[in-house]
Amino acid sequence: LIGLVSLPAFAADDLEKLMQDDNQWVSQRKNYASNGYSKLSQINKANIKNLKAAWTFATGVNRGHEGAPLVIGDTMYFATAFPNNVYALDLNNEEKIKWSYFPKQDPSVQALLCCDNVTRGLAYGDGKIFLQQNDGVLVALDAKTGAKVWDTTVVDVKQGATTTNAPHVFKDKVITGCSGGEYGVRCYLTAYNIKDGSIAWRAYSTGPDTEVLIDKDFNKDNPHYSALSVYEDVNGGNKEGGSYKALPKDKLKFPEKDLGVKTWLKPQATKNGWEQGGGATWGWYSYDSALNLVYYSTGNPSVWNPDVRPGDNKWSMTIFARDLDTGFAKWGYQLTPHDEWDFDAVNETILWEADGKKLASHFDRNGFGYTLNRETGKLLVAEKMHPFVNWATGIDLATGIPHKDPKFSTHEDVNVTGICPAALGVKDQQPAAYSPKTKLFYVPLNHVCMDYEPVEVKYVAGQPWVGATLSMYPGPDGVMGGFMAWDGLKGKQAWYKKEKFSVWSGALATASDVVFYGTLDRWLKAVDAKSGKELWKFRVGSGVVGNPITYGHKGKQYVAVLSGIGGWAGVAMNLGLTNDNDGLGAAGGYKELKEWNAAPGGGALNVFGL
Amino acid sequence: LIGLVSLPAFAADDLEKLMQDDNQWVSQRKNYASNGYSKLSQINKANIKNLKAAWTFATGVNRGHEGAPLVIGDTMYFATAFPNNVYALDLNNEEKIKWSYFPKQDPSVQALLCCDNVTRGLAYGDGKIFLQQNDGVLVALDAKTGAKVWDTTVVDVKQGATTTNAPHVFKDKVITGCSGGEYGVRCYLTAYNIKDGSIAWRAYSTGPDTEVLIDKDFNKDNPHYSALSVYEDVNGGNKEGGSYKALPKDKLKFPEKDLGVKTWLKPQATKNGWEQGGGATWGWYSYDSALNLVYYSTGNPSVWNPDVRPGDNKWSMTIFARDLDTGFAKWGYQLTPHDEWDFDAVNETILWEADGKKLASHFDRNGFGYTLNRETGKLLVAEKMHPFVNWATGIDLATGIPHKDPKFSTHEDVNVTGICPAALGVKDQQPAAYSPKTKLFYVPLNHVCMDYEPVEVKYVAGQPWVGATLSMYPGPDGVMGGFMAWDGLKGKQAWYKKEKFSVWSGALATASDVVFYGTLDRWLKAVDAKSGKELWKFRVGSGVVGNPITYGHKGKQYVAVLSGIGGWAGVAMNLGLTNDNDGLGAAGGYKELKEWNAAPGGGALNVFGL
Ligand SMILES: O=C(O)c1cc(C(=O)O)c2c(n1)C(=O)C(=O)c1cc(C(=O)O)[nH]c1-2
Ligand SMILES: O=C(O)c1cc(C(=O)O)c2c(n1)C(=O)C(=O)c1cc(C(=O)O)[nH]c1-2
Repeated sequence: LIGLVSLPAFAADDLEKLMQDDNQWVSQRKNYASNGYSKLSQINKANIKNLKAAWTFATGVNRGHEGAPLVIGDTMYFATAFPNNVYALDLNNEEKIKWSYFPKQDPSVQALLCCDNVTRGLAYGDGKIFLQQNDGVLVALDAKTGAKVWDTTVVDVKQGATTTNAPHVFKDKVITGCSGGEYGVRCYLTAYNIKDGSIAWRAYSTGPDTEVLIDKDFNKDNPHYSALSVYEDVNGGNKEGGSYKALPKDKLKFPEKDLGVKTWLKPQATKNGWEQGGGATWGWYSYDSALNLVYYSTGNPSVWNPDVRPGDNKWSMTIFARDLDTGFAKWGYQLTPHDEWDFDAVNETILWEADGKKLASHFDRNGFGYTLNRETGKLLVAEKMHPFVNWATGIDLATGIPHKDPKFSTHEDVNVTGICPAALGVKDQQPAAYSPKTKLFYVPLNHVCMDYEPVEVKYVAGQPWVGATLSMYPGPDGVMGGFMAWDGLKGKQAWYKKEKFSVWSGALATASDVVFYGTLDRWLKAVDAKSGKELWKFRVGSGVVGNPITYGHKGKQYVAVLSGIGGWAGVAMNLGLTNDNDGLGAAGGYKELKEWNAAPGGGALNVFGL
Repeated sequence: LIGLVSLPAFAADDLEKLMQDDNQWVSQRKNYASNGYSKLSQINKANIKNLKAAWTFATGVNRGHEGAPLVIGDTMYFATAFPNNVYALDLNNEEKIKWSYFPKQDPSVQALLCCDNVTRGLAYGDGKIFLQQNDGVLVALDAKTGAKVWDTTVVDVKQGATTTNAPHVFKDKVITGCSGGEYGVRCYLTAYNIKDGSIAWRAYSTGPDTEVLIDKDFNKDNPHYSALSVYEDVNGGNKEGGSYKALPKDKLKFPEKDLGVKTWLKPQATKNGWEQGGGATWGWYSYDSALNLVYYSTGNPSVWNPDVRPGDNKWSMTIFARDLDTGFAKWGYQLTPHDEWDFDAVNETILWEADGKKLASHFDRNGFGYTLNRETGKLLVAEKMHPFVNWATGIDLATGIPHKDPKFSTHEDVNVTGICPAALGVKDQQPAAYSPKTKLFYVPLNHVCMDYEPVEVKYVAGQPWVGATLSMYPGPDGVMGGFMAWDGLKGKQAWYKKEKFSVWSGALATASDVVFYGTLDRWLKAVDAKSGKELWKFRVGSGVVGNPITYGHKGKQYVAVLSGIGGWAGVAMNLGLTNDNDGLGAAGGYKELKEWNAAPGGGALNVFGL
């Protein structure tokens, strides 16, 4: 009677198996490892000159089209910028619209999005498509029909919280984040049960250990990560340029408990600092199913004026490894203690292996490329991605603490000039790719410096709470961006290619050693994975802030990418802001974007084939 | 001292000479004859399989992108749907934006546009780019810098008048129109002096001869065109199905004066019917520089309920030939006297020659294809473009009067079903092309029928004044559209190709016998001019309601087309209207558009090359 034994409809690793099929692209960064790598190789260096537009689809929505389409079976799914319309296109029937889903969202939500109207795409699992709307609502749609299966509200827009991240499905959970670092929102990561949307766990970025989901085994392999303060002067230097020294390991006090409370000293905001401490979670997440660990990192501490929050401001700016089932953190490493520059650390963490070791690499806004042992959290490599990084001279591998250069420390009412990188980092949300074939990472880069002046600003719930005035400009290379190949073991560039503007698109690596990325001046480019040599380019309709993907259909390899300029780099252009300090400081540096793009940027899906 | 003799900077025929250069595309329909024909032939039947997307440019504006880009020298110019942004792209420098012009228009103007946000493009002449904004403002911009040279207001939006037509430059005049047939606007055509925007003349479509610009020589070759009434019952039939007969020539009373007043009998609207008589002029205009005649035609009489305006309702629905310098009409022929179906006659008139005769052909909404002697206005051919046309059995060549079928006459509070074509005609604004090589016209078609019920409605200035409820559905071919080649001398189809939806794009004919047009389901297609056989197609981002053009740059031939679905066929989809009668009756018939298009449609420029 074996036929009557009821098996769970969704086995734990169905999705992981699907990820092995390179004809499909079932999660934003391709797989749990988030490596943005495909084994497809039909499009290669020899024939790429013949790569041409196959079809396009205008989304009818303007502004930042981040993320990527998903390809599941013969259907392509994608979401637009606000109002986050979802389309399912039938690849077997001339890309006819199988179904569409137009969420009803209060238009006023747009004004809360710090860095333009953006959303980073959909997730898939258990026969459902998951949309994280900007207004905090997470929706599960039947992948076949578009019918709503369940929905739930993740954050409270009345507090100024929004959601721009892609939800991520890991096994039987849907993981989603929170934006609001510029509104003093106390952010968190939440796991929902995929079947019904009930909450599995929620881990805050700040506050007591019970709410950050930290227990006694936390950081047991690197207990110094749980130090009370990592600098001699807990204020991280002062207006007079006083003490600023990173403590050596033997001077650190660890392990300490409730650091999410204790590292937020007075003076502070109206409440305890950690209660409006930011630590947003709007980036990309990865998962190791063998270790059952989820990897993600937290954003900047709120407010951008560091003087009102002396201390390390834990657990902002932290890479966490959490148990998927319980949410409890196995380890957490703070990349930029006591942030003074908005080096919001949410960038992706890519999982990979070398020399039999389970590794994780992270390319941080602060300009360092990190490689860690992903089981233990042990820091192995932390090197500048480009020599122009000047806020720190280096990172102490023994402690993980950056050696800050006090010249570039920021303080209330002081306009510190020439800080590199700018707040949007050597790299912002645009995800890197890793090729197991070349053993190199492919990393989109900004090359922007800034002047930064913290100012006093009162916290009002639901109102912007930024606390600094910025202006941004090209770095010493005389351009605004670049693209590099990076050796994650050596912590060194393999090659580096300048770009006129920040590369705000993600990277795609393929087995034929062809790497793709898009630019803000409307190119989709393919380069040689080994040398960075440009092999091919096509001019799409608007600047690319989406992530190229590749898939196979009926024996043919395709490359697809969303275009539609936006995000922090494009927000000033999209809104027609012209004062250099507008758009959180981006208006000035990126003003030439409007010589290459209609404003606002129009969204489209672009598909290419041989 | 000949060097000191000052010559006019702009010679009368500079523009006409420029039109001979097929590397450029300096006016909407290519030349004064409006034939949409290019002598370029690099892209031909043998190599068209290699035609591929060269670059695209998303306009960042949604809804109907009608008209075409212009190519003048090395610069491409185009305008978007409302707010009618203008871009000048440098073809020598990677299509960098040389300048852009973003008009400030009151957003409420959009609500006045009857048939979606549309504009039919720019004009060029005398070193200036001319933009006719939707709000009635005509702007002259310096073609090199985008600086405003002059502007003037053409119509009064407070009366419900708007402007969607492309301005047309003929010699030293800029000609522009008026929309408002669904608002009871008394429309006109206006000529402005190109240098300074001062008014040269204005010709009303209704009213006394002094204002219609009619003098004693009008229709002297065909005085019967100036008959008082062309039907036995001036009411054009009545509710009881009474007399409806076209008068034979010897029963006509002509010539009469002030027909623009006298053919608007009581009962009528609040004022004299002609004072709110419509006769919009939102179409395409042509010009014969040797005859110095401008050709254009006027729209439907307002209101759509015919019972309140007994009589022929002259000079609505009329092809006029006017002297460019004075505006006085040489001849005028009314195509649909006493319109009962909104067969708005503004469609283009294409100038051509055959057997040494100067001809003009016009493909009317009412379903007939007309060829006239363009010097005299004499009607030579008037045949059904498709046999499904049923409101009239034929046109009497001796008088030009349609033999109406009383079964399809419409009357207040009677729902007449099965009228073919529907109000949007066998062809709407989408302009046909003529190839002097094949001697055939290439005509985009609708294949839609309707039910039409006139209703009483009070005139309120500035408010919609429609007066009928419509529903539309596919004609007997079971599809909504088609594309045909037409012999203008025989009044016969050479070939006919069905299309799923109305072909709302214009046609482009080329010397290699390749003809281009776009479809609402997102194809740009190329067909064999001799057989209609499909040679090539590409799926652009949104349905095509623009007109493909071709130009040459650095030795290479390109084809360019705007995409961005809209216009009457797309308005319901763009606005999310779902009731079948919404969108002036178009919602029902075109509901499947949303299976192929994002709503609203996103605008883009698409350029193709070998
Ligand atoms: O702190 C936050 O809550 C938050 C949210 C977001 C977001 O949700 O897009 C960005 C940022 N910060 C940010 O610092 C940043 O550089 C940024 C860039 C972008 C983007 O999409 O281009 N979003 C965000
Ligand atoms: O009577 C008018 O004033 C008027 C204006 C317009 C317009 O300005 O677009 C259209 C029409 N009528 C009309 O009858 C019509 O079929 C139509 C189609 C379109 C279009 O752009 O698709 N406009 C118009």
